[in-house]
Amino acid sequence: MIDYRSDNTGRAAPEILEALIRANHDTALGYGADEWTATLQRRFSELFETAVRVFPVATGTAANALSLAAASPSWGIVYCSEAAHINTSEANAAGFFGGGLKLVPVAGEYGRISAERLAETLAAIAPGQLHRGQPAAVNLTQASDLGTVYSLAEIRAVAEAARSRGLKLHMDGARFANALARLDCSPAEASWRCGIDIMSFGATKNGGALCDAIVVFAPELADGLAVQLRRAGQVWSKMRFASAQLLAYVENELWLDMARASNAIAARIAAGLAGIPGARLLAPVEVNEIFLELPGAVMDALEADGFGFYRRSKTLARFVCRFDTTEAEADALIAALRRHLMPSAARAAE
Amino acid sequence: MIDYRSDNTGRAAPEILEALIRANHDTALGYGADEWTATLQRRFSELFETAVRVFPVATGTAANALSLAAASPSWGIVYCSEAAHINTSEANAAGFFGGGLKLVPVAGEYGRISAERLAETLAAIAPGQLHRGQPAAVNLTQASDLGTVYSLAEIRAVAEAARSRGLKLHMDGARFANALARLDCSPAEASWRCGIDIMSFGATKNGGALCDAIVVFAPELADGLAVQLRRAGQVWSKMRFASAQLLAYVENELWLDMARASNAIAARIAAGLAGIPGARLLAPVEVNEIFLELPGAVMDALEADGFGFYRRSKTLARFVCRFDTTEAEADALIAALRRHLMPSAARAAE
Amino acid sequence: MIDYRSDNTGRAAPEILEALIRANHDTALGYGADEWTATLQRRFSELFETAVRVFPVATGTAANALSLAAASPSWGIVYCSEAAHINTSEANAAGFFGGGLKLVPVAGEYGRISAERLAETLAAIAPGQLHRGQPAAVNLTQASDLGTVYSLAEIRAVAEAARSRGLKLHMDGARFANALARLDCSPAEASWRCGIDIMSFGATKNGGALCDAIVVFAPELADGLAVQLRRAGQVWSKMRFASAQLLAYVENELWLDMARASNAIAARIAAGLAGIPGARLLAPVEVNEIFLELPGAVMDALEADGFGFYRRSKTLARFVCRFDTTEAEADALIAALRRHLMPSAARAAE
Amino acid sequence: MIDYRSDNTGRAAPEILEALIRANHDTALGYGADEWTATLQRRFSELFETAVRVFPVATGTAANALSLAAASPSWGIVYCSEAAHINTSEANAAGFFGGGLKLVPVAGEYGRISAERLAETLAAIAPGQLHRGQPAAVNLTQASDLGTVYSLAEIRAVAEAARSRGLKLHMDGARFANALARLDCSPAEASWRCGIDIMSFGATKNGGALCDAIVVFAPELADGLAVQLRRAGQVWSKMRFASAQLLAYVENELWLDMARASNAIAARIAAGLAGIPGARLLAPVEVNEIFLELPGAVMDALEADGFGFYRRSKTLARFVCRFDTTEAEADALIAALRRHLMPSAARAAE
Repeated sequence: MIDYRSDNTGRAAPEILEALIRANHDTALGYGADEWTATLQRRFSELFETAVRVFPVATGTAANALSLAAASPSWGIVYCSEAAHINTSEANAAGFFGGGLKLVPVAGEYGRISAERLAETLAAIAPGQLHRGQPAAVNLTQASDLGTVYSLAEIRAVAEAARSRGLKLHMDGARFANALARLDCSPAEASWRCGIDIMSFGATKNGGALCDAIVVFAPELADGLAVQLRRAGQVWSKMRFASAQLLAYVENELWLDMARASNAIAARIAAGLAGIPGARLLAPVEVNEIFLELPGAVMDALEADGFGFYRRSKTLARFVCRFDTTEAEADALIAALRRHLMPSAARAAE
Repeated sequence: MIDYRSDNTGRAAPEILEALIRANHDTALGYGADEWTATLQRRFSELFETAVRVFPVATGTAANALSLAAASPSWGIVYCSEAAHINTSEANAAGFFGGGLKLVPVAGEYGRISAERLAETLAAIAPGQLHRGQPAAVNLTQASDLGTVYSLAEIRAVAEAARSRGLKLHMDGARFANALARLDCSPAEASWRCGIDIMSFGATKNGGALCDAIVVFAPELADGLAVQLRRAGQVWSKMRFASAQLLAYVENELWLDMARASNAIAARIAAGLAGIPGARLLAPVEVNEIFLELPGAVMDALEADGFGFYRRSKTLARFVCRFDTTEAEADALIAALRRHLMPSAARAAE
Repeated sequence: MIDYRSDNTGRAAPEILEALIRANHDTALGYGADEWTATLQRRFSELFETAVRVFPVATGTAANALSLAAASPSWGIVYCSEAAHINTSEANAAGFFGGGLKLVPVAGEYGRISAERLAETLAAIAPGQLHRGQPAAVNLTQASDLGTVYSLAEIRAVAEAARSRGLKLHMDGARFANALARLDCSPAEASWRCGIDIMSFGATKNGGALCDAIVVFAPELADGLAVQLRRAGQVWSKMRFASAQLLAYVENELWLDMARASNAIAARIAAGLAGIPGARLLAPVEVNEIFLELPGAVMDALEADGFGFYRRSKTLARFVCRFDTTEAEADALIAALRRHLMPSAARAAE
Repeated sequence: MIDYRSDNTGRAAPEILEALIRANHDTALGYGADEWTATLQRRFSELFETAVRVFPVATGTAANALSLAAASPSWGIVYCSEAAHINTSEANAAGFFGGGLKLVPVAGEYGRISAERLAETLAAIAPGQLHRGQPAAVNLTQASDLGTVYSLAEIRAVAEAARSRGLKLHMDGARFANALARLDCSPAEASWRCGIDIMSFGATKNGGALCDAIVVFAPELADGLAVQLRRAGQVWSKMRFASAQLLAYVENELWLDMARASNAIAARIAAGLAGIPGARLLAPVEVNEIFLELPGAVMDALEADGFGFYRRSKTLARFVCRFDTTEAEADALIAALRRHLMPSAARAAE
């Protein structure tokens, strides 16, 4: 199979697994009181050019839900895109860890929320209207769940709408590396300098193995979060093996190299699609995901060819590139699409 | 330092980390739909001689809290030992994941609960007394939090008291391997054949790295648990790297070899203590933990000697042996205790 | 002020308050073990022509949220109308009492959900897709939040779609009396005979004072609910004073008489509106609520005239009739609307 | 039956029910935006000699659980007496509304907690020990669940221990009126001037009907609580009927008169017991409850005589006096006890 199903079906970067083996010596205090975790705090603070607190967690769902639970009281409303992963794919973990907090979708383009629509939504809620719950936080997915990227100006606009009502701003950065590679700016510029208070820092989808992290920029959120993480069963006693993964992930720009690689493959496919009249993208290809409207028969044919991908609806296919997806695999997909969507042209080319 | 602080300060078994590297090839579906996780189901079903469902989780806290949440309604009472890890050391994760369930201690000896006392407690609650909440489940720690082991007969007695009121029985098996090595029986005999419905299957404290597991014997508990785990952020997308650890852990009796090793070191120390009049054990040494009543000055002296251990109170020290604690380290501890508790005898021996 | 703000701004029926005074003699066991509450069980079982369990609660929010928490596991999805009270006006009480359950809107007309759209939504969720949570229950508001009424056939269709996937069906009957008066059928026909499993039985909005009730038709939901109610602080120790209110409410058809009265006033206003070209109803007037699209200036003018009502948006006004709203008040509203919407006609008529 | 079962088996004060009827005129905005509720704020602020916020709630369980949820984060530890109502009789409502907070008993005499023991307990928890959860609040029951009363000095000592660690102090004042009548001081002296931050203000057990209240002294707790109450279904839409009850309750010292009456009857019984050698009190009789150690045969005999009371164990009976328990009923109980405990003396007296 040529696998475009997801970026979580792939291998881990060998450097990350080797880091586990290198960390396997001597004894070290448990639950994060080890030297790897201390180094992680320093290393991420350098990376983000400010003092951050970093908490390794097992999954992106844990990172998102616990971040939001830290950013919102239990009666809070958290605004997000209709397509946001927290809204569609996490079994309402945010509602659970948040003690009943509620997700409310805000419209926007291509999986992003619109700052204008957010401001309008907030303006329609008078502060004393207790029966609605209280606006508490905003969630952005960067890159978005439709494979697009917020510009820094767009994040700032959302942050401003949020901040003016005292809301916290959370970034679901499951594909933060891919977004950063696209934006070509510093981690600081793409996060707290735009107004992000707390962030799910993804690694798994970009060559990681068994951990993601929460990065806290707003210091007042960190202490409560630390207890919640412990209670949530998200604090490994042998934390060194988690922290070592995250250290390896950012060492020598490994994370950005992997993101650039998967983005480049997606861009190569998108470029190839440009020449195929019937290939209609649902959203611009800005990172490593391609959402393509395709007739069901073409999807059937691709599967018969041995391609793996997800059918998001009867006429929508999603193709995801991994850090180790090859140019040959990209070209094979383009050729197959050309073959199925432009049968005569494809035959002529043969 | 000669480190007796905890069994979670130690290294992982190299076999477990190497299994990660061996699993790092090709693509595999996420969230447990991979072949390693399928193998894990089969392998544990063989190991336990019955069809079980196995769910890898990040931590023992997650294993315990989610097991209890599966075994009890949110208004349930869960009975446990006063010393139980869920009661003392997990930030009330059981209460949180269980939606407000309540832990109620039951007395017993050496960290175990007494079947008789459990039966009395249950007899004092009339079924219709809604103001108390409803008895729902019982938690046993095997080995116990004071380093002792329930006999099979003791478990059966607790199970009978529980079952007669319709309560589920959960075993916190953070040190199940150590208990099993001590009992010298099969995993099946020590678990479901004694009446256990669901179990936290520990690996981390016994040479594991980044995962433990929940093993479900009562099939009706599994489907709800599966959703809860997803919502709890305890289902890794690259699950193969968790399942591979657990497969390596039980391969060729690795887990039992490691448990036998740490138990043997603890037994060696206990034997050495027998000759030291001032050394008073809080509980029999049945697995890899030693709870020793010591004057504060002796604890100070041990620390000055370079020993690491936990002070559980001003006069109680805990020493924990790991799978790789050496006989030399054991003998050094005995000698130091002899030196500090029997200064004249120690001098005479020199 | 002529008050059309809400049916909860009004007086209680005197019969209901007098019942409190009549119940104020002798001693009686607390928490529902009194004779009034026993009578309530019998009386409602007669009323609904089947054995029901009735639990008085303080508010409709409590009735709804605890009913849904009984009908759904904590990881459940509860389907409802976008306009449903549980979705817009209860501070996510359902999510809170339900331990993180999630409300998901289903489209339909005039505040109702469409059975077809519900069936489509359910068909799009494969049973094993744990990341979405699990479909668990459906909520209907009868009368709806836009003042319309489900026909019995419509309820049956929703019930069938729900039942075929194992979902429970909850009716938010905050205005059940008004709906029943409109449907002109028996309570049984309008509830469990259509497939309702559990119901919020409203009294407050229809001349009640301090309590509503949960009526349980599906017996398996009742025992857990009883504990939840106690834990939720919804079980009065002097329960007789709640049960006496509910007994008085249904005595001699008081509830239906009051509902018929408020419905009749709304119908009188709707009839009056028919002659006013600019008066556009948002939804048919089927019970005691009128949703009227009006220019802001007309709303200003009505307020200047001394009418009270809610502005649901800049161009939408809601008028609610109470059991004691008078025909004169209705006629005054019609005249005022005629005056403001048809100034020349109104002047001509003078 | 001569009923000593509980103070919640009794009638309501007629003044309180009549207040409902007096409030039943005109329309009034819902959910507390009415004039009765505004008056309630002013009246209680006068009563407590400081600006308080008062929230009527349906039950004492709601008052306690929501107060504690306001005073503690969800990972908090709340210290209370082993005998505290929140610990024994509220189905862990505090754990539920508190999102998993944990109750931890602190020892003391006669149902009170000891300031010294609280201070010791807190001293044994290092601030960074996340695995325990975090000390957050302290609960006092005034009068206590064994019918005793904290002196002002005792409350101040507990408050000081709590405050020095940043803990909030909650008073469960289900029988606050009885305690106040005993202490013979002002409400202010018995509450916030001693360091109470938030209080469950009981009325039901002392002649109330259908509501208690939360009184908030620490203003930072009130806004979040207001949303929680709405979400908890504890905000009546026709709030005037709750506020009117509470206004009548404190009007012309009605509440204190009723408490003095029930206290006096209990004192009369206690004085009568003094002459009966076999009558052993479990705790001093300081308010309206009498805990009496009695042989089972004597309890049987009392029941045969027509007395109602609760058997708290095989040898412990509880007798509770209501505001309308009569001196004749008291004398009848004394005579019966004398008869059963001193058969020969009783016969001699005849």
